[in-house]
Amino acid sequence: MFNEANHELPWDKLKEECGVIGIYGPGKDVARLAYFGLYALQHRGQESAGIAVANNREIVVEKGMGLLTEAFDEAKVSLMKGHIAVGHVRYSTTGSSIFGNAQPLVCRHFRGMIAVAHNGNLTNAAERRRNLALTGAVFQTTTDTEVIVNLLARHTQSSLEEAIMQVMTEIKGAYAFLLMTENKLFAVRDPHGVRPLCLGRLQDAYIVASESCAFDTLGATFVRNIEPGEVVVIDEQGITSLKALTRPRQAACIFEYVYLARPDSDIDRINVYMARQAMGRMLAREYKVAADIVMPVPDSGTPAALGYSLESGIPFEEGLIKNRYVGRTFIQPTQEMRDRAVRLKLNPVGKVVAGKRIVLIDDSIVRGTTSKKIVQMLRQAGAAEIHMLVSSPPVTYPCFYGIDTSRRQELIAATKTPEEIRRMIGVDSLYYLSQEGLLAAMAGEPAEAARGVEKPLNTYCTACFSGEYPIEIPRQTG
Amino acid sequence: MFNEANHELPWDKLKEECGVIGIYGPGKDVARLAYFGLYALQHRGQESAGIAVANNREIVVEKGMGLLTEAFDEAKVSLMKGHIAVGHVRYSTTGSSIFGNAQPLVCRHFRGMIAVAHNGNLTNAAERRRNLALTGAVFQTTTDTEVIVNLLARHTQSSLEEAIMQVMTEIKGAYAFLLMTENKLFAVRDPHGVRPLCLGRLQDAYIVASESCAFDTLGATFVRNIEPGEVVVIDEQGITSLKALTRPRQAACIFEYVYLARPDSDIDRINVYMARQAMGRMLAREYKVAADIVMPVPDSGTPAALGYSLESGIPFEEGLIKNRYVGRTFIQPTQEMRDRAVRLKLNPVGKVVAGKRIVLIDDSIVRGTTSKKIVQMLRQAGAAEIHMLVSSPPVTYPCFYGIDTSRRQELIAATKTPEEIRRMIGVDSLYYLSQEGLLAAMAGEPAEAARGVEKPLNTYCTACFSGEYPIEIPRQTG
Amino acid sequence: MFNEANHELPWDKLKEECGVIGIYGPGKDVARLAYFGLYALQHRGQESAGIAVANNREIVVEKGMGLLTEAFDEAKVSLMKGHIAVGHVRYSTTGSSIFGNAQPLVCRHFRGMIAVAHNGNLTNAAERRRNLALTGAVFQTTTDTEVIVNLLARHTQSSLEEAIMQVMTEIKGAYAFLLMTENKLFAVRDPHGVRPLCLGRLQDAYIVASESCAFDTLGATFVRNIEPGEVVVIDEQGITSLKALTRPRQAACIFEYVYLARPDSDIDRINVYMARQAMGRMLAREYKVAADIVMPVPDSGTPAALGYSLESGIPFEEGLIKNRYVGRTFIQPTQEMRDRAVRLKLNPVGKVVAGKRIVLIDDSIVRGTTSKKIVQMLRQAGAAEIHMLVSSPPVTYPCFYGIDTSRRQELIAATKTPEEIRRMIGVDSLYYLSQEGLLAAMAGEPAEAARGVEKPLNTYCTACFSGEYPIEIPRQTG
Amino acid sequence: MFNEANHELPWDKLKEECGVIGIYGPGKDVARLAYFGLYALQHRGQESAGIAVANNREIVVEKGMGLLTEAFDEAKVSLMKGHIAVGHVRYSTTGSSIFGNAQPLVCRHFRGMIAVAHNGNLTNAAERRRNLALTGAVFQTTTDTEVIVNLLARHTQSSLEEAIMQVMTEIKGAYAFLLMTENKLFAVRDPHGVRPLCLGRLQDAYIVASESCAFDTLGATFVRNIEPGEVVVIDEQGITSLKALTRPRQAACIFEYVYLARPDSDIDRINVYMARQAMGRMLAREYKVAADIVMPVPDSGTPAALGYSLESGIPFEEGLIKNRYVGRTFIQPTQEMRDRAVRLKLNPVGKVVAGKRIVLIDDSIVRGTTSKKIVQMLRQAGAAEIHMLVSSPPVTYPCFYGIDTSRRQELIAATKTPEEIRRMIGVDSLYYLSQEGLLAAMAGEPAEAARGVEKPLNTYCTACFSGEYPIEIPRQTG
Repeated sequence: MFNEANHELPWDKLKEECGVIGIYGPGKDVARLAYFGLYALQHRGQESAGIAVANNREIVVEKGMGLLTEAFDEAKVSLMKGHIAVGHVRYSTTGSSIFGNAQPLVCRHFRGMIAVAHNGNLTNAAERRRNLALTGAVFQTTTDTEVIVNLLARHTQSSLEEAIMQVMTEIKGAYAFLLMTENKLFAVRDPHGVRPLCLGRLQDAYIVASESCAFDTLGATFVRNIEPGEVVVIDEQGITSLKALTRPRQAACIFEYVYLARPDSDIDRINVYMARQAMGRMLAREYKVAADIVMPVPDSGTPAALGYSLESGIPFEEGLIKNRYVGRTFIQPTQEMRDRAVRLKLNPVGKVVAGKRIVLIDDSIVRGTTSKKIVQMLRQAGAAEIHMLVSSPPVTYPCFYGIDTSRRQELIAATKTPEEIRRMIGVDSLYYLSQEGLLAAMAGEPAEAARGVEKPLNTYCTACFSGEYPIEIPRQTG
Repeated sequence: MFNEANHELPWDKLKEECGVIGIYGPGKDVARLAYFGLYALQHRGQESAGIAVANNREIVVEKGMGLLTEAFDEAKVSLMKGHIAVGHVRYSTTGSSIFGNAQPLVCRHFRGMIAVAHNGNLTNAAERRRNLALTGAVFQTTTDTEVIVNLLARHTQSSLEEAIMQVMTEIKGAYAFLLMTENKLFAVRDPHGVRPLCLGRLQDAYIVASESCAFDTLGATFVRNIEPGEVVVIDEQGITSLKALTRPRQAACIFEYVYLARPDSDIDRINVYMARQAMGRMLAREYKVAADIVMPVPDSGTPAALGYSLESGIPFEEGLIKNRYVGRTFIQPTQEMRDRAVRLKLNPVGKVVAGKRIVLIDDSIVRGTTSKKIVQMLRQAGAAEIHMLVSSPPVTYPCFYGIDTSRRQELIAATKTPEEIRRMIGVDSLYYLSQEGLLAAMAGEPAEAARGVEKPLNTYCTACFSGEYPIEIPRQTG
Repeated sequence: MFNEANHELPWDKLKEECGVIGIYGPGKDVARLAYFGLYALQHRGQESAGIAVANNREIVVEKGMGLLTEAFDEAKVSLMKGHIAVGHVRYSTTGSSIFGNAQPLVCRHFRGMIAVAHNGNLTNAAERRRNLALTGAVFQTTTDTEVIVNLLARHTQSSLEEAIMQVMTEIKGAYAFLLMTENKLFAVRDPHGVRPLCLGRLQDAYIVASESCAFDTLGATFVRNIEPGEVVVIDEQGITSLKALTRPRQAACIFEYVYLARPDSDIDRINVYMARQAMGRMLAREYKVAADIVMPVPDSGTPAALGYSLESGIPFEEGLIKNRYVGRTFIQPTQEMRDRAVRLKLNPVGKVVAGKRIVLIDDSIVRGTTSKKIVQMLRQAGAAEIHMLVSSPPVTYPCFYGIDTSRRQELIAATKTPEEIRRMIGVDSLYYLSQEGLLAAMAGEPAEAARGVEKPLNTYCTACFSGEYPIEIPRQTG
Repeated sequence: MFNEANHELPWDKLKEECGVIGIYGPGKDVARLAYFGLYALQHRGQESAGIAVANNREIVVEKGMGLLTEAFDEAKVSLMKGHIAVGHVRYSTTGSSIFGNAQPLVCRHFRGMIAVAHNGNLTNAAERRRNLALTGAVFQTTTDTEVIVNLLARHTQSSLEEAIMQVMTEIKGAYAFLLMTENKLFAVRDPHGVRPLCLGRLQDAYIVASESCAFDTLGATFVRNIEPGEVVVIDEQGITSLKALTRPRQAACIFEYVYLARPDSDIDRINVYMARQAMGRMLAREYKVAADIVMPVPDSGTPAALGYSLESGIPFEEGLIKNRYVGRTFIQPTQEMRDRAVRLKLNPVGKVVAGKRIVLIDDSIVRGTTSKKIVQMLRQAGAAEIHMLVSSPPVTYPCFYGIDTSRRQELIAATKTPEEIRRMIGVDSLYYLSQEGLLAAMAGEPAEAARGVEKPLNTYCTACFSGEYPIEIPRQTG
C-alpha cells in the first residue's frame, strides 16, 4: 500500500536516496536494533546497507550491496558489540552504485574515529570538494558524506560540536545526517528541514530515524522531530540540543507525503496515509467523473484512491493485482514479454474491470511509460472508460535535494502538455491535483480541508512541481 | 492483496503445496516461458523451483532451492533448449524440504526419459510405495511423484497413454500433474478435480498451468479448464483429450478461493477476487456490527473487507501497513522484539485506528497466534473496539489433499469454542462465515447471492471445515 | 610429488574416477572422520564430494560439487550424527558431471535405507540397466551405482548379504564399493581386485578406504587389504568376511602405481613411492644417456627421476618449478598466453637448465601436448639436449575399468610410432620403460629387481599398455 | 618446491606481506596481463587481491578477498579497459585483514586520480599519519599506502614527479610501490632496496613486478632491476629514470632468498633456487652427519636438501609427501586429529624412513611447533635418527620491513638456546647455517663458495638473524 522504490523492474517513480537510523543504547544490542530499524526503512534505499557500531574505544562497520537481508547475516550482526550504532540504506543511480560509496563512512581523523550516515544532497559539494583538494585533501568516494567528514577534520582547533556548527555554515543543500564518535551520537538536520529526521525512545535508549515507522518496528515511542537547523547530541550526559543556525523558512519535501515515505509514518507531525487520503479527497473535489469504480495503481495510489472513493461515493475496487513475489530477476524476458513487462508485476482482474468506467488513481507520473502500459492492459481487459487522476501536480523540475529525478528531458510533464500526455498514455481524461489543492490537503487533512480552513502553506518544498527552489542550486545541471 | 504463503516470517496461514506449468511450444523459448509462468505462480510454493525441457531427443532439468529468482539465473535458463517444458514451484514442510525432493522429477525408464511435476497429495501413496518396494522398486525421494513414475514404469506392455489411464485407477487422492516425454506433454487431473489445472494458448503454443494468472503474465489466453478425470495429450498432432475415469462428484478445493489462489485467477470459471468479495458481502449479511471502519488483515483479507464495506456501508480503510521489503531475514530479533515480530511485517496507522470501532476482516484463522498479536497492536494504537470477522468457517479438520495444515491439535478451532478463541485473541466479538454462507457466496457471486439464488452447492471439497472427506483418507494421520 | 588429477588446467594425464571411504565407529564423529579421510583421497576425484551417515534409524546425506572444501562446511558436517559413514569423491567426464550423479547414492528399498559409494566401472552396466528397465525399473542417474542398487532391490527373498553375493555374479567389471544400511557397513571388491580397497582401524572403529594414506591422515592403522572377490561386513557383531566368488587371476590396476595413487599409500602390500623409484631405476638400467642432470616433470615424475639419478649417478635437480597456488581459474588467458598456458603451472629455473644435457622423466604420456610445451619451454631456457624418459610403457589402449582414458584416437601412442612421437614433442631422444621392466620393477622393488629376482608377473592389469583385457569389455567402445 | 605462505593450515613460517605488478601496455589487455602476473605472485599474499586500470580519463578498480581466483571472475577482468594496470596481492595479519585495506588504493586528489600498490613497511608511518591528521587529513584505512597518498596530495605546488621525490625524503622504511595516474605508471624502490622490484618487457609493453617469475608467466623478458632509491616513470614518452635519493648501503632482504621468493625468480641478479642449493651445500660443509638419507621438509626445503645431498653424497629422498589439495578447510578436526593436524598436509612414506638415519632439511624454524610434529611423525614411522639442519641462522629478531614475524617472544630462537630447541623438537642433533655461511653462499653460489672466494658481504639486510637494522626502527615494538 505504501510507496516502493521498485528496484526490481523498471518502474516509473522518483527515488528516495537514503534512510538513516541511529541508536544510543548502553546495555542494548544496538547493531541488532539498527538492523531492524533499517528493515522498516528499506523502502528508502535498496542498493546497499551498512551499520557501524561504537564501543567507547573504536568503531567497527559492516556494509554490503543489495537489500539489508542480502547485506547482513546473523554472524555479522552478532559480532558488532557496542553501545551506539548508526545505520544506512542507500539508493543510488547506476553510475555510482559502487561498493566504495556505501555508508556509513568510517574514518580516522585527529579527534579519533568517526562514522557518518547521510540522507540528502549538498548543492555546493563540488565547490567544497575542489577547495579541499587544493589544500591537500584526498578523496576515496564520490559522496557528499566524505566532503562533510573532510570539512570537520579541517577545524583542528575546535571541539567536534563547534566544528559541526561551523561546517553547517559552509555547506548548502538538503541534509539529515547522523554522526558517531567512539562515545557520542549526533543528529543534524539542515536549516530548511528538507529531509525528515525524528527522535524516539526505547526505555533508556534514544533512537534517531528518517521516519517514525522505524520506532514502531522497534517498539520505541516517538519523542519529537529534529528541528530544522538543529544539532542533537546524545552521550552519557543524556541529550543536548544545539541550535546551529538561525532558521530560514521551513521547506520540508512535500514528495515524502505524495510518494516517498511509508504511510504509517508521521513526518513533522503529519501522518502520511492521512495526507494521501486528503489528497484523494481534494482530487475528488477538484475533478468529478461519472464512473463505476475507483481503482488505485497499487500500492502507492491506494490511500488517495480511498479518499477519492469516500469523497465521491464511487465504489473502490482493487482491480489491479500485484505479484507479491516480484524480486530482482536476472532472466531476460522474451521480446513479446518485454513490451508487456508490467504484467510481471501487475495484472488486472478481468471480472472487475470489464465494461466499467474507471477512475484510476496514481500518486504521480514521471515518464509516463508505466502508466501507458497499465492503461493498455486495462483496455485489453475490457475497461469501458479510463480516467487517470494523479494525486499531485505534474513533476516538471528536477530535484537537487536528494531525490533521483530523471533528467529534465525525461520528465514527461516538462516537455508535454497535459493533453499530449493524455493522448500518449491513452486515457479518456487526465487530471492532476493542483498545487493549491495539494497544499490545502496538507494543511487541513481531509475533514478540515473540506471545510476550507486556511493554514500557512509555505512550509514545504514544492520545487519539483513549481521550480521554486528554496535553496540555491548548482549553476550547471546534469 | 492476494494470498501469500509468507515463507519469510512465521505467519498463521495454510500453505499450498505446489504450482505447475507446462509449455508445448515448438519454435518458442519454452524454458523462459516456463520461468515467467512460474513467476506468476510463486505464491504456490517458495521452497524450491525447477524446470525441465525436452527436445525430442532428451530431457534436461535445472532445479534450485528457494524462490525462483534464487534458483535460476540467465545462464541456466538460456542453456535449456527444446520445444516442451514443465516447471514446478514447491512448498514443503521443514522435514522434507530437501533438495532431492525438488521437482520436476526426471527419470529414465524403458520408454525413454520422463519428467513429472505434481501438485496434490495421494492418499494411498504409502501403500503403493510399499507394494512397489516389495517387488524390487528403489526410491530416491519421499515424493508422491516418484510413486507415480514407478507405477507408470511397471506397465511395460502398454503405451504411455494407456499406462497413465491405468495408473489413475491405482492411485487415490488429489492430484494435478504434468508429464513430459522427449516429445509429448500430458496434463492429468484427478477425478474429483480437487487441485486446479487449466489450459491456455499463446499463438501456436499450448500452456497448462495451476492458475490462469500464469496465462496473463505470458500474454496467453485462457482456453478451458482441464476436466476432472481428464488426461490431455499435446504433441505434434495437436491436442487430444482422454477421459481416463468416469467422473464422480466434483470436489474442487474451496480453500483455493478463500485464501490460496491469486485473486486475478479464474478457477473452474469463478474469479477468485469476486468470490472473496462475495464472501465479504455474505459476511455482512450474516453478521452486522456497529462500527466506524472496516479494515482487512492485508493482503489476503482485502477483497472480503471491500465486500463487507460495500454491503454494510461502513467505510473501508487500510489501517494496517505491510512492509513490502519483508524477506527471509536470518537475523534473530531481540527478545523484546520477538514477542512483537508481527511488527516487522505489519504496522497500524495510528491516526486511522485511534478511537475507532473496527471491523477487522481476515480470510481464515489457523492457530490464532498472529491474530492475537495484530489485535494487541491495534489496541496499543488506540482502537476503541475490535470485531474480528472471518470470511470462511473455522478450520477444524486437517487436509489430506495437498495443503499443509497444522496437526489437528494445532488448529485452534479444533480444540476451542468460538468464545474461547475470541477471548484468546482478545477481540470484542468474533464471527466466522457459515459454511452455507460460504457456499452461497461461491454459488451466486455477490449480486445473485444477495438475491438468494440457489445453485447446486455440492461441487466443492469443504473437508477442512466440515470433516466430510470426498476421497478416502489414510487410516492413521500424522 | 604424487600424482594430481589437475582438474584446474588442461593437463595430459589419465584420471582416476573415484575414491571411497567408510567408517564404522560407534561413539565417534564419523562424518568428520569421513571428511578428513576424503581429504586424503581428494586426488582421486575433484568434481563432487559426498558423505552419508547412518544412525540405526535412518541415513542422511550431504553432497556438493567441486572440491571437498567447496562441497562441505562445518554446519553440514556437524549436523550429520550417527555411527557409520560412507564418503565419496568423484571425477567424471564433462558430459555427466551433473549433480544428480554425485555419490553416495542413498535410496529406500524394501529392506529400508541404503547408501552406496562406488569406485570402478561395470562392463555390463548397459545390459543390466536395459534388463531392469524392461521389468519396470526407473533410473534417476546414469551411474553404475544405481544399477547395483536396483539389482540388490530385486533379490526380494534374500538377506542383504546373500543379495550382494548374488549381484556379484550378475555384474562384470572393476569395482570396489561401500554399502551402508541403517546399521551395517559392507565393503565389496571385485574378483580381479582391479581397484584398491583396504581395511584400517582407529581404536574400536573400522575404516575402509581406497588408499592407505587415508588411514595415516586419520591416525588409524592399516589392518589388511580387502581381498579380490571378498565382501566384508562390519556391524555390532564385529567384522565378518564373506568370500563371494571364487577368485580368478588377480589383475590389480598397475596404473595406480605408475601415476594414480598417492606415493605414501601402500596398495596390496606395495608402496607406491618405492614402486615408482624402482621404475626409475629400471629405466636407468634399460636406457642410458650421457647427461648432466636428471629432472622430473613435477610432481608425479619425481620418485622415478630420483630412482634414475640414484641408479645412473647423474645429479637430480628440480629444474621445473610448479605454481602451488594454481587453482581453477575462469579467466581466459590472452591469445599469446594460451599457447603457453603450461607456464601458468610450470616454469623452468633458467640457471639450472641453461646449457645442460637433460634427462627429463615423466610417468606417462597420454596425448603428448603438455610434453611438447614443456620441451619448448626448456629449449627457450637454453637446454642443450633433452632426453625424455617415461617410467611406463606407451598408453595404447583405452581403460574400461574406471579410468578416464581419452578415446583411442587421442592416445598418441595408439597412432604414432615412438620416433614420430619423439619428433612431435621435439626431444633428442625418447624412451619408454618396457612392460617387462615395469613388471620387474613392481615385482622386485629396486634392490631385488637389480638382482634379477623373478617373481610371478601376472597379477596386474596392464591392458592400457598391452590391450590384454582381463575382464570382458563391452562390444562397442565410445 | 618453492616457498608457500600456507594460508590454509597453521604453518610455521614467516610471511611475505605483498606482491605488486604494473603493466604499461597501450593496445594490450592490461587487466588480464595484471591478473596472470599476480597469478605468478600469489605466494606473496593470499588474503586479498586487486587490480586497477587507467584509460587516460579515469581509473577503475576491482578488489576481492582471498585468492586471486576467488577475488576475480572473467566478467570483472573483461570489463576493465585501459592501457595501464597495477595489481596487488596482500597478506596481512588477522587484525587488519579487512576489505577496506585491500589494494590498490584508488583516490582522487587535486591532480586527478591516483592508484597505489605497495609492498613493504614504513617505519615512520605512525608519526607521518599523526602529523597529517593534525592538519586535517582523514584516513579510511590503516595502511601505509594511504599515508603515502596523503603526503603526495600535500605537495600542491609540485609536479607528481617532484612530489614523489620529495615524499621519499619524508618516509622511512622498506618500500617498493607502483603508482598510476590516468596516463602514467611510476615504480618506486626505497634507497636500501629492501624489497625486490624489477622491470620487464613484453613487445612494446613495460612490466614492473616484485619477482621475475611474473615475467616468465606472461612471456615477457627481464630487462633490469629497479635500483635502490630509483623512480622509474613510464608514459607515452617511454621510460625515464629519476634518481630520487643518494644511495646508502644496499640492504636487500636476505629472507627472500631463504624462503619468501619463488625459486624460479632471479632477485637482484641472483637466482633463488641456486642460492638455496648453495645454502644447502654450505650447510654440508659446516655440519657433517653420518646418515642414510637427506630429506627436505617440502616444498621450501627441497633445493637446500638437494645441495646438501650433492655436497655430502648422502642420497636424497622425498620421504614426506604433501597433500596437493590442501586448501582452506573450515571443518574443525576432531580433538585427536588436532594434535596431529600436520598429517592433513604432510605424511611420511613409511618404507622410505623406517630404520633410517635421516638428515632433515628445513629453510627456517620460527616457532618450532610444526618441526616438532614432523619429527614425531617421522619417529612413529620408524626413523632411527633424525638430524634437523636449517639452511639459515636462527630467526631471533622481528622484522620491521614488511615481513610478518611473530612477536619476539614467539620466536623460539629468541628465548631458547639451540640445545633447548633441539630437545623441544625432539631431534638427535640440530644445526643452523651460520650467518657467515649464509652470506658466503649468497656471495659465491656453491662452486665459488666452496673455493672460499671472498666477496663484499654487506649488501643484505640480515636483521632478523643479527638484530642489525639497516633502517631506524620505531621506538616501541609490538
